[in-house]
Amino acid sequence: MAALSRLPFHTSSHPKPSSLLRLPASLPVRHLSFRCPTRLPSLSVSVSCSSLIEPDGGKLVDLVVEEPLRNSRKLECLGLPRVKLSRIDLQWVDVISEGWASPLTGFMRQSEFLQTLHFGALRLQDGSVVNMSVPIVLAIDDEAKGRIGDATRVGLFDPDDNPIAILNDIEIYKHPKEERIARTWGTTAPGLPYVEEAIRDSGNWLLGGDLEVLEPIKYNDGLDQYRLSPSSLREEFSRRNADAVFAFQLRNPVHNGHALLMTDTRRRLLEMGYKNPVLLLHPLGGFTKADDVPLSWRMRQHEKVLEDGVLDPETTVVSIFPSPMLYAGPTEVQWHAKARLNAGANFYIVGRDPAGMSHPVEKRDLYDADHGKKVLSMAPGLERLNILPFKVAAYDKTQGKMAFFDPSRPQDFLFISGTKMRALAKSKESPPDGFMCPGGWEVLVEYYDSLTPVDNGKVPEVVGA
Amino acid sequence: MAALSRLPFHTSSHPKPSSLLRLPASLPVRHLSFRCPTRLPSLSVSVSCSSLIEPDGGKLVDLVVEEPLRNSRKLECLGLPRVKLSRIDLQWVDVISEGWASPLTGFMRQSEFLQTLHFGALRLQDGSVVNMSVPIVLAIDDEAKGRIGDATRVGLFDPDDNPIAILNDIEIYKHPKEERIARTWGTTAPGLPYVEEAIRDSGNWLLGGDLEVLEPIKYNDGLDQYRLSPSSLREEFSRRNADAVFAFQLRNPVHNGHALLMTDTRRRLLEMGYKNPVLLLHPLGGFTKADDVPLSWRMRQHEKVLEDGVLDPETTVVSIFPSPMLYAGPTEVQWHAKARLNAGANFYIVGRDPAGMSHPVEKRDLYDADHGKKVLSMAPGLERLNILPFKVAAYDKTQGKMAFFDPSRPQDFLFISGTKMRALAKSKESPPDGFMCPGGWEVLVEYYDSLTPVDNGKVPEVVGA
Repeated sequence: MAALSRLPFHTSSHPKPSSLLRLPASLPVRHLSFRCPTRLPSLSVSVSCSSLIEPDGGKLVDLVVEEPLRNSRKLECLGLPRVKLSRIDLQWVDVISEGWASPLTGFMRQSEFLQTLHFGALRLQDGSVVNMSVPIVLAIDDEAKGRIGDATRVGLFDPDDNPIAILNDIEIYKHPKEERIARTWGTTAPGLPYVEEAIRDSGNWLLGGDLEVLEPIKYNDGLDQYRLSPSSLREEFSRRNADAVFAFQLRNPVHNGHALLMTDTRRRLLEMGYKNPVLLLHPLGGFTKADDVPLSWRMRQHEKVLEDGVLDPETTVVSIFPSPMLYAGPTEVQWHAKARLNAGANFYIVGRDPAGMSHPVEKRDLYDADHGKKVLSMAPGLERLNILPFKVAAYDKTQGKMAFFDPSRPQDFLFISGTKMRALAKSKESPPDGFMCPGGWEVLVEYYDSLTPVDNGKVPEVVGA
Repeated sequence: MAALSRLPFHTSSHPKPSSLLRLPASLPVRHLSFRCPTRLPSLSVSVSCSSLIEPDGGKLVDLVVEEPLRNSRKLECLGLPRVKLSRIDLQWVDVISEGWASPLTGFMRQSEFLQTLHFGALRLQDGSVVNMSVPIVLAIDDEAKGRIGDATRVGLFDPDDNPIAILNDIEIYKHPKEERIARTWGTTAPGLPYVEEAIRDSGNWLLGGDLEVLEPIKYNDGLDQYRLSPSSLREEFSRRNADAVFAFQLRNPVHNGHALLMTDTRRRLLEMGYKNPVLLLHPLGGFTKADDVPLSWRMRQHEKVLEDGVLDPETTVVSIFPSPMLYAGPTEVQWHAKARLNAGANFYIVGRDPAGMSHPVEKRDLYDADHGKKVLSMAPGLERLNILPFKVAAYDKTQGKMAFFDPSRPQDFLFISGTKMRALAKSKESPPDGFMCPGGWEVLVEYYDSLTPVDNGKVPEVVGA
């Protein structure tokens, strides 16, 4: 109640999202600190500091055709056999082309697909191993396969028939859907959001090959300015002279427990001797399930959190991670971590049941809540990444704020799950004072208010966090 | 017909199985060649030749308590909380204790279980990686968990309540059955033989720990003399002065196509410059599905094949691999190969659809026939093993014998699947002359003849090879 009573003071101005984050040098940004390494005083700000972790495979993949060649490539693309991309396919094109999946250079061929399913990793030609836990594949149906025939290249087109990319040196192989689902999710139960959206009705073939993307993927949703590529993020971290980058993956609103965790992580990194740890607050921007809070609302909420001073903009970079969400728990958390490593993060915060959800059929969580961090800490190819397990934060009734759970006085703590949080916001109730900054909470309430009740007069059911 | 007409000449004597294979030095053996490496003329025969491939982890695990300590350990065991083993559990105790799964020293703890499910490999303390694709775990129910309480050691007892082993430094963790099945088999369809037999109704907990086995596991089925441990096999290969060991996993009768493949492999190894390649003909001895030919009959059949001179006893070691069969295709073939590496094999022959079967529900093979060899060739921890893909052998009607398939004249070849073979033997029909040595075929006919027709007057249905 008290929290909500403060809302009016925070709703008067919705600053443009751009004030939130540090953009590449060409854009005006407020909080940038242009300190360069003292040992290299003459370096221009666009040079990466050598202290950033190396991307997988040693070099960031960048598959966007260079400006002078774009027109000719586009003409080529228009003359090739056509493959229509779904919305999620397009998100993967974005992901691959910017190098999040480095050293992957396109949709997986069979050898990469099989290694991903069986080993969660790819062996490179030099014998080294990089993590790759989720299949990044392009399904096509029998008709498309027939249309491609013996061609070695195809053109990829978006849902509105705009040419997007050329796929070179292609390989078509069977799409073993059941096996893919079982090995990725550890279940084949009906109702897995990504499976229902992108696999169940997809084609019986997979099309692998090397991508050449005609121009950077844009979503034109007012949020493209937040979509920094791994290489732009690396430039930003270097520009800030970060000597440690810690990434926080999220697809939910930020509450003060998260914030406590992030500020505490920074404190711990400083204690470890790092001089300038920078937080990458990295909301997932691709496909999410129907009852998750949509990206645009989440970005508004995150913005409020920085505005309200819950996180320090000086040491925080907010950007959008373009990947779709698989809800594949321990398998997916590796992907979330690996992609951030490619963007320069050498610390990764992992929580309880990362990328998990309720079992779609049985009354239990799909994954054991501890498996995610355990699997992540043992994952091949991620040995270089420092895994920071979440401390459990809960609402401390004695302090009236979020605090790390103290097992010696459990009665003082209140656990507010994502489900509970969303249920409260939906019914316009207030969480306990100090659970979330008022501005952020108001965005949530506004979001649920905006939902048009469906058929039965109820908004969509809210399920696990 | 012609093949069967020769049967009487080969049924008069059933030599004892022991004549088949090379046993440890204490037993009388006919075909042993005691050549020692010329550079080490003074070595005793029990010293391993350095040319054998190193076991995983550098050292073969041997978990059988040494003779002088057996009585005291047995007394200890009798005083510990008791866990009853199933027949399959006991096979795994055998497998682990002899070092087939080296460097595994007991039933998996959670960290090993998770690495197996997600990565098909275990990372050792020195950072090196060994292959481990199938979970080797011990399920217990709630009652057993309660009985164990806070104990750190338990006694393992066979189905007849005989003490078998002590499990030390135990760890109890949840048994995520659905996830285990999905990630191991790539399906959760009902009807997977191992799942139905050993997982579906098993306990909700897994019990990991380090094994101490009270004495070598014996089956007392007249075949124990064939059960050579990895270390005995290594001694045997060294004694024969093998400079290459190629393993052939099987759970079916040997026909002349297999034989052709094995003799051809030896020829190729000789061409590669090896002087003395030895074949490990290695029938699987643990759990198999109901319609597979039982081990005792298969051993009689293999015996005939050597007797009939189809394979050369001088360069062939026949032994039983004590593992249960999972029918887990590409996941399991890695286990089959890794275990043989531990037994000294540096070449592994892999066929079409290894460890595969029909989908238990859908009308198709469960696995793509090519995935097994592809996955095996990319498997972490098996880089040292040379993978030899099967050439396809079929019955060449123009030659009246099994030959490598010649794609330029497909009309001349007859493919006789395991299913077809078993159906013929069951109905006492003859395969084409030259398909299998007559003595071996007669054993098969005799086996199917021995089956008591069930309820409906039919013998059990024969399914995929």
